[in-house]
Amino acid sequence: MKIPDSARQLIESGAHAHLVTLNADGSPQVTVVWAGVDGDEVVTAHLMESQKIKNVRRDARVALTFESPTQSAMGLTEYLVMYGRARLVPGGAPALLQRLARIYLGPDVKFPPMDQPPPGNVMHITVERIAGVGPWTGRAV
Amino acid sequence: MKIPDSARQLIESGAHAHLVTLNADGSPQVTVVWAGVDGDEVVTAHLMESQKIKNVRRDARVALTFESPTQSAMGLTEYLVMYGRARLVPGGAPALLQRLARIYLGPDVKFPPMDQPPPGNVMHITVERIAGVGPWTGRAV
Repeated sequence: MKIPDSARQLIESGAHAHLVTLNADGSPQVTVVWAGVDGDEVVTAHLMESQKIKNVRRDARVALTFESPTQSAMGLTEYLVMYGRARLVPGGAPALLQRLARIYLGPDVKFPPMDQPPPGNVMHITVERIAGVGPWTGRAV
Repeated sequence: MKIPDSARQLIESGAHAHLVTLNADGSPQVTVVWAGVDGDEVVTAHLMESQKIKNVRRDARVALTFESPTQSAMGLTEYLVMYGRARLVPGGAPALLQRLARIYLGPDVKFPPMDQPPPGNVMHITVERIAGVGPWTGRAV
């Protein structure tokens, strides 16, 4: 599906992504990562073959949540949930990390800090359903 | 397991809990909720028989993540991940929501706002494993 403008703005503002993948035994695995938007996909960068990378190779189903700095009319913190499917594209992780580091850490930072980072993988997440509390759901709370 | 003091402090500071449960088809479901600590369990309050309540009746495995306001030595945002099992205790949701509302909304708020809220359920989560980035993991990043 198309990513609503309000969701795109929240992600690109530097909100952190709580990325849920599924372990081999079906239990949830979660890490907090940097995320960007590329067309209508959410993208995350991974230098290493971490557990979440192994998980999405086996089961592509993922969820992403982002807290918003704004409150709903009831005073509740707004948040964005995205359900989707991940595919891994080899390479390109250092360049995406550098692009995201400017948002998450600061305009002048060099990241990753090492001189020859491994190419890693970029995770591309196609969004199938959006939930949470905020303008991206189309429901008032 | 015992909840480390640093994790307890983060939760009781009013950090929001990203609560992951598992749908019948094994896919992840996530909502952002208020959370408290009761002994060595994390507790959340639920007035309604929502999807997450139905989910934990079927599969008790849950994950909780909390963002911290502090940064690691590398400048990365610290966060707490808790993996555990949920059990539901009927009733008591309005009283727990009122206790948590004082932390999440303000000391004088009445919550839930309605006069006769349903008794709901309190979710008690026993913690089996802790991860993330921060003093609660015992690893430096």
